[in-house]
Amino acid sequence: MSETLSNAARLCRELIRCPSVTPAEGGALDFLEKTLGAAGFSVSRPVFSDEGTPDVENLFATIGSGSPHFVFAGHTDVVPPGDEAKWSAPPFSGEIRDGEMIGRGAADMKGGVAAFAAAALEFVSQRGADFGGTISFLISGDEEGPAVNGTVKLLEWAKAEGHTFDACIVGEPTNPDKLGDAIKVGRRGSLTGEITVTGTQGHVAYPHLAKNPIPGLVTLLSALNALHLDDGNERFQPSNLEVTTVDVGNPASNVIPASAFARFNIRFNDQWSLETLKARVDEALRDAAPDGLDWKIAFTRDGSDSFLTRDDALISTLSSAIHEETGRKPELSTGGGTSDARFIKTYCPVVEFGLVGKTMHQVDERVAVADLDRLAKIYRRFLDSYFPVK
Amino acid sequence: MSETLSNAARLCRELIRCPSVTPAEGGALDFLEKTLGAAGFSVSRPVFSDEGTPDVENLFATIGSGSPHFVFAGHTDVVPPGDEAKWSAPPFSGEIRDGEMIGRGAADMKGGVAAFAAAALEFVSQRGADFGGTISFLISGDEEGPAVNGTVKLLEWAKAEGHTFDACIVGEPTNPDKLGDAIKVGRRGSLTGEITVTGTQGHVAYPHLAKNPIPGLVTLLSALNALHLDDGNERFQPSNLEVTTVDVGNPASNVIPASAFARFNIRFNDQWSLETLKARVDEALRDAAPDGLDWKIAFTRDGSDSFLTRDDALISTLSSAIHEETGRKPELSTGGGTSDARFIKTYCPVVEFGLVGKTMHQVDERVAVADLDRLAKIYRRFLDSYFPVK
Repeated sequence: MSETLSNAARLCRELIRCPSVTPAEGGALDFLEKTLGAAGFSVSRPVFSDEGTPDVENLFATIGSGSPHFVFAGHTDVVPPGDEAKWSAPPFSGEIRDGEMIGRGAADMKGGVAAFAAAALEFVSQRGADFGGTISFLISGDEEGPAVNGTVKLLEWAKAEGHTFDACIVGEPTNPDKLGDAIKVGRRGSLTGEITVTGTQGHVAYPHLAKNPIPGLVTLLSALNALHLDDGNERFQPSNLEVTTVDVGNPASNVIPASAFARFNIRFNDQWSLETLKARVDEALRDAAPDGLDWKIAFTRDGSDSFLTRDDALISTLSSAIHEETGRKPELSTGGGTSDARFIKTYCPVVEFGLVGKTMHQVDERVAVADLDRLAKIYRRFLDSYFPVK
Repeated sequence: MSETLSNAARLCRELIRCPSVTPAEGGALDFLEKTLGAAGFSVSRPVFSDEGTPDVENLFATIGSGSPHFVFAGHTDVVPPGDEAKWSAPPFSGEIRDGEMIGRGAADMKGGVAAFAAAALEFVSQRGADFGGTISFLISGDEEGPAVNGTVKLLEWAKAEGHTFDACIVGEPTNPDKLGDAIKVGRRGSLTGEITVTGTQGHVAYPHLAKNPIPGLVTLLSALNALHLDDGNERFQPSNLEVTTVDVGNPASNVIPASAFARFNIRFNDQWSLETLKARVDEALRDAAPDGLDWKIAFTRDGSDSFLTRDDALISTLSSAIHEETGRKPELSTGGGTSDARFIKTYCPVVEFGLVGKTMHQVDERVAVADLDRLAKIYRRFLDSYFPVK
């Protein structure tokens, strides 16, 4: 059976066999280094550290020279497999069943890395290193973890090393159902806020001696739930707020608690910036807060603005490659969660396209073996168009 | 110094020296048994058990015969002292400083037990056992604990032993500031309810694939906070509802949680019964619940109805004794929390009167030494009036 596998499928299986649960490298980057190095890539393995987070290994590989400089971004770390007994095949084996390769990371996103590696190796073997530009791999080992010692620092490192990028594809699984469904050409921003209301603890039988923080918090949360931010636009969905937790943690039914806490997250479109959105939320809470309520709002520091990539050449080149290979005209989507593209967008135009994401992070994460080869062919078509023979 | 102490103060100090933190008897009931037994009381020490709670020792002592049968109810167990280093005297020593006896239980309620014991011993020593009725002590060792193996079972036990009571004083500290401030002639009821809203877990970036339970819970809690139950009446304060906790426990700001929980407690007056109040709360929640919300309300089984004692003879006899001894006309109060009176009320008319409660459950719990003797004198006056010489 293995004789008939495409290069992309073989590379994917090798990567799945490396147990690279964040922050472990698990052999995945070693394998990539060996594979790309043998094909003539210059490979670096920067390790980044930060207080309070584990050290993380990363990989940067590059071939060719000068502009245009195309970079493929991805990660080889994976989320834990969970209860391995629930998997129908071992999660780090890459077994194939009914035409699907099963394994943690198959879709998110060892499959994408393998497909691009297969495409790039084939491209380089045919065109040589003097193809009229540069191709790089920017591979994080910390996408599924704190995301502190991965892409952010790898981009800074690459810049310091003198690399400037002209275009990027992130190989995350962007297709909801079928390969070719969707390219992500932007992402909504994300803002997390935390509300604390402080009262005075006391006995429920003597409420005049206490001050219950919960009614005030409920009033503030009602205002957040009623907050209409926008109706969306032709580029983005409407912005949306979700209260994600409310926590008081008072086990005693005869005690009025001293404080109450809630957290919410907003996924917002390009009609807002982090700053205008914070101001709007703050205004809504101030309007709603009862007189004398002791409350405060804090926004976590991991917020990110929305972005929309307007590089028509990058988008149309990728769209055409997808259409030619699959017959589908991909939707240009800005939905869904955040990805490392939010860090890359300040360096160069970035879009995202990879495999079908349905099973990512689940038990029996898997990918159609045929899709691995088709994705490699799409990436290959893209490289051929992006670096035309002169 | 100890030579000048009143009997009440000496008995109180002996009781404080017994470290009877619930469920430990700590020697307090042994001491009472010995003291009352020596004065001619017939003493029983029933021990009660229940699955999941510790066994608890209790005491029932009785003298005299026939009607009227007066019972003094109290407890010798105490709450833990907390950080003993913060006390200005050891919590189980009964040291006297500036005219105050310091110790855990001084106010709640070894002082009350000691004062009544001093009064009853003096009464019996002068009138003998043939005083035209019966005096009993009903002393729980489980008032500060789960309250399962104390007063409730002791009342059932006494009934099974053939004791019927005509009147009861519970010796809890009822005075907010000065001895003689207040008799409790009733108590509000207490009802605890728990609301659970069930949704569907999901990613905040895909809210259409999830169902956030928090907005629905916030709507229900808004309705509870806005619920006006009554305005109170000449006997009772207005009924009052406090939401005591809201708990979701979702640490991930990018995850919509699967369920949300809240608990509330209502202290309610005699315009409601447990059943009418449950129905009113249920109606308010039904009216407020958005269509399709998956929610449920459960009431905990420890709810208790309000009660108001209407035995004018009992109240006026006690009020007169207080007035004669202190010059104060006590307020007839129904405020504050619950007490074991809620169990006794179904056996006989019950009122509560004891020491000043300001320091109960606190570090440096204490009582004026003079108050111990004055309370004993009030109880003695009460016994004299309740059992007049024929």
